Amino acid sequence: MDIDLPDVLAEVGEAFARYETALVTNDVAVLGELFRNDPRTLRYGGGENLYGYDEIQNFRSARSPVGLMRKTARTVITSYGRDTAVASTLFYRDNAPGKVGRQMQTWIRFPEGWRIVAAHVSVIDEPPASP
Amino acid sequence: MDIDLPDVLAEVGEAFARYETALVTNDVAVLGELFRNDPRTLRYGGGENLYGYDEIQNFRSARSPVGLMRKTARTVITSYGRDTAVASTLFYRDNAPGKVGRQMQTWIRFPEGWRIVAAHVSVIDEPPASP
Repeated sequence: MDIDLPDVLAEVGEAFARYETALVTNDVAVLGELFRNDPRTLRYGGGENLYGYDEIQNFRSARSPVGLMRKTARTVITSYGRDTAVASTLFYRDNAPGKVGRQMQTWIRFPEGWRIVAAHVSVIDEPPASP
Repeated sequence: MDIDLPDVLAEVGEAFARYETALVTNDVAVLGELFRNDPRTLRYGGGENLYGYDEIQNFRSARSPVGLMRKTARTVITSYGRDTAVASTLFYRDNAPGKVGRQMQTWIRFPEGWRIVAAHVSVIDEPPASP
C-alpha cells in the first residue's frame, strides 16, 4: 500500500481545488460532476442526510447561493494506493463567528476520473485550542 | 474497480461490527486497534477535531464511558476494490431526543488488517422526513 504517491496526491489536490471553487461559486454542474453518479454515493450535510446521487443533486439545485464563501484551514489530503484518497478540511465563514466547519470526503479513481463517493460536512462550536 | 465484492464487504462488516461493540462498551484497546496508528489518521468528532493517532487515543482515554449506548440506522457499507471501504451510519441516543448522529469512516486494508484512516462524527437536529 503506497501512501501519498506524489502524482496521485497532485491529481487529487487538483480535483479538490476544483471542488472548492465550484462550492463557493455554487457551480452545480461541477459539483455534480465531482460526486459519483451512483445510488451508493452518500453525503451527510450540515443539516441533512442525503442517500444517493439524486438526493444530493436535488439538494444542490435547491440551495441558496448566498453566503457560501469560506476560508479553509488545516486541509489534509492523504492517498492510499493509486485509487483512493481522503480529503479533509476545516472551514470558517464570516457569517458564523465562533464556529468551525469540518468537511471530509472520500475520493475514488474511476475510468472517468476522481469522484467523491462519500462526504460528511458538519459545523461545531470552535473547540478551545489544544494545550 | 470492483464495487461491493461479497468477501470484502463481509470482512469490513465484521470490522465495523467489532468497532460498534467497542464503542458502546468503551473498549479503548479495540478502538485503538481499529484506528490506524499513524500521524495522518484523522477524526472529526462530535465536539473536537483530532489530527493523528495520538490525539485520537488521548481523547478516547479521557472520555467518560457513560451514555455511549446507541441505536444505529441506515447503515451503508460500500467497498471499492479490495482495499477500500466507506462505512456510514446514523445513530440515536436516548439522552439526545430529536437529534440524529452521523458517523462516516474510511477503512483501508493494511497487512495488519482493516483500519480506519479517517472518521467524522457529528450530531444534528433530526431533519424532517423526506416527502
